[in-house]
Amino acid sequence: MRLKEKLVLGSLVGSVRDGNRLALARLLSQVENNTPEGKECLNALFPYTGKAHLIGITGAPGSGKSTLLNQLAYTFRHPPEGEQARRVAIVAVDPTSPFSGGAILGDRVRMRELAGDPDVFIRSMAARGSLGGLASRTAEVVQVFDAAGFEIIFIETVGAGQNEVDIARLAHTTIVVETPGTGDEIQAIKAGILEIADILVINKADSPLVDNSEFALRSMLDMAPIGTDYYHSMEMRNNPGLNSPKDWQIPILRTVATERQGIDALYQTIQSHAEFLQESQEWIERERVNLQTILDNLIQNSLIDQWRKSISNDVYQTVLESLISRQTSPYQALQILMKGVLP
Amino acid sequence: MRLKEKLVLGSLVGSVRDGNRLALARLLSQVENNTPEGKECLNALFPYTGKAHLIGITGAPGSGKSTLLNQLAYTFRHPPEGEQARRVAIVAVDPTSPFSGGAILGDRVRMRELAGDPDVFIRSMAARGSLGGLASRTAEVVQVFDAAGFEIIFIETVGAGQNEVDIARLAHTTIVVETPGTGDEIQAIKAGILEIADILVINKADSPLVDNSEFALRSMLDMAPIGTDYYHSMEMRNNPGLNSPKDWQIPILRTVATERQGIDALYQTIQSHAEFLQESQEWIERERVNLQTILDNLIQNSLIDQWRKSISNDVYQTVLESLISRQTSPYQALQILMKGVLP
Repeated sequence: MRLKEKLVLGSLVGSVRDGNRLALARLLSQVENNTPEGKECLNALFPYTGKAHLIGITGAPGSGKSTLLNQLAYTFRHPPEGEQARRVAIVAVDPTSPFSGGAILGDRVRMRELAGDPDVFIRSMAARGSLGGLASRTAEVVQVFDAAGFEIIFIETVGAGQNEVDIARLAHTTIVVETPGTGDEIQAIKAGILEIADILVINKADSPLVDNSEFALRSMLDMAPIGTDYYHSMEMRNNPGLNSPKDWQIPILRTVATERQGIDALYQTIQSHAEFLQESQEWIERERVNLQTILDNLIQNSLIDQWRKSISNDVYQTVLESLISRQTSPYQALQILMKGVLP
Repeated sequence: MRLKEKLVLGSLVGSVRDGNRLALARLLSQVENNTPEGKECLNALFPYTGKAHLIGITGAPGSGKSTLLNQLAYTFRHPPEGEQARRVAIVAVDPTSPFSGGAILGDRVRMRELAGDPDVFIRSMAARGSLGGLASRTAEVVQVFDAAGFEIIFIETVGAGQNEVDIARLAHTTIVVETPGTGDEIQAIKAGILEIADILVINKADSPLVDNSEFALRSMLDMAPIGTDYYHSMEMRNNPGLNSPKDWQIPILRTVATERQGIDALYQTIQSHAEFLQESQEWIERERVNLQTILDNLIQNSLIDQWRKSISNDVYQTVLESLISRQTSPYQALQILMKGVLP
């Protein structure tokens, strides 16, 4: 890298640290596009990370989690008397989120109250990235916000699939949003989504079905082996149960986000969870898991890149043709392709 | 491998080809557990694959897709006069599916009519596998059924997330099941699920909201850039648009699966899609994409395994600690860890 470029980078990093929104936006683009400049800046910014409270918020499309998030962000900006306002970033990974540009129903209107605030920054991720790639890039965007001094960073995902679990892993606190009725609360449990929750929210709690919902969720929390076995799925390590240590009782809160009902209680619960994490050393444990995930994702992507560069396209195509004509099985094809490359 | 083991394997493969259900169940377990014996058998069986019609069926929890699948399987077993009954396998990857043991609402009852049929085989996948792992193992289970002479193989997934898209890729025909009302049809589009559909089904079509649903889906089909850009997400290759070639008009069918309404029409549409695929050469194209996906997944998993074996745990832990204390950034950690291993 030439000296002039270094100076430009240094000034970009400095500007981001100084709260320059334009520099921040520019750096986020570099990071999302995975440019060498972006990587240099991430290296330079990394020592300044580790201060933000990362809050995952996940729920099915239609659960109202974007409205809830909007209200929560507002509360962190305008907290109860005696508490400090915090700088808030929102990373929207949910393709159905109004924050990520997916809304087609006019949800955008709801965000007006955040729009003029210089201490709120909203960034949507292109959700169609590659599997490991999306989690990696989300983690990096979060690092940039963290180093830029945002104290509260929300990560919004749609609550389904392994992808979400990987992204939820980035958070210190994971909020799962449910809605009353339609048996969704049971489906959520079956789908394993409850197992990543630190805080459960029943939104749209003005429905007459809310008592049934809460009862169902409570029964499930009592009987489900929360936090066990779920994280065996990750390939590259064995880590202890990540969420829901035994002495944190997962609270179930009711909200009507459109009416701002229950938002203050949720805000307080988030604060309590942060305190619990700090006191129980669980905060540090989650940071550790988080960083290991980031590293393992980088390793995985790098291995694939290197392999791709190391093999000629002709060889690959020849093997592929032999596979397609069913003369070679997939495992036999694998052996041929890996033999030339690695010892 | 010793001669005796070879003979046992040979006889297992032979028994599976001869329709022995016990041998089939045993082999499926070997394949799911990724044993060397399982791999040997897959190699031996692979030349016999490529005959089955693979049908993906996907939809949100609660959409009734399991009931629909049950009815469809029954129809393939008991087709209209003049058509041949086919052997049917069901691979349930959906953790909420009654087929995969996830049901807690008594859905199992619905499957009695399939239970005694020797030409129906239902296999559930442990859905908590690793990311790439689940798609790989599903593909292998499908290969076993294919080589064992099952002519129709259903792959059932819950319709959300990249995982489902990867698994849907295995199918020749992908059916997306929606339900009327609650704006789900719009959410589905936003989440990209429609983009993998060859056939759209509105189940629970006795709802008064069904007309609105169909209208919404139709408008979306007209305006959405179906089949474009979606598959750019895959890392290891460039492949042409997989689903929905231009001359296949994606049909929207109405069913009430609990009442067997619309099932025969759906059965006919599936047959028509198979014919379309054959005539348009799209069948071969999908086979090609399918096999390449399988190979790429194997390569990816193999690279990670080899890397893990090649690096000492001490080195890894030292780098990890330096990352956690924020002395080393993730990219710097990556460089250290990769330097010793690959050129």
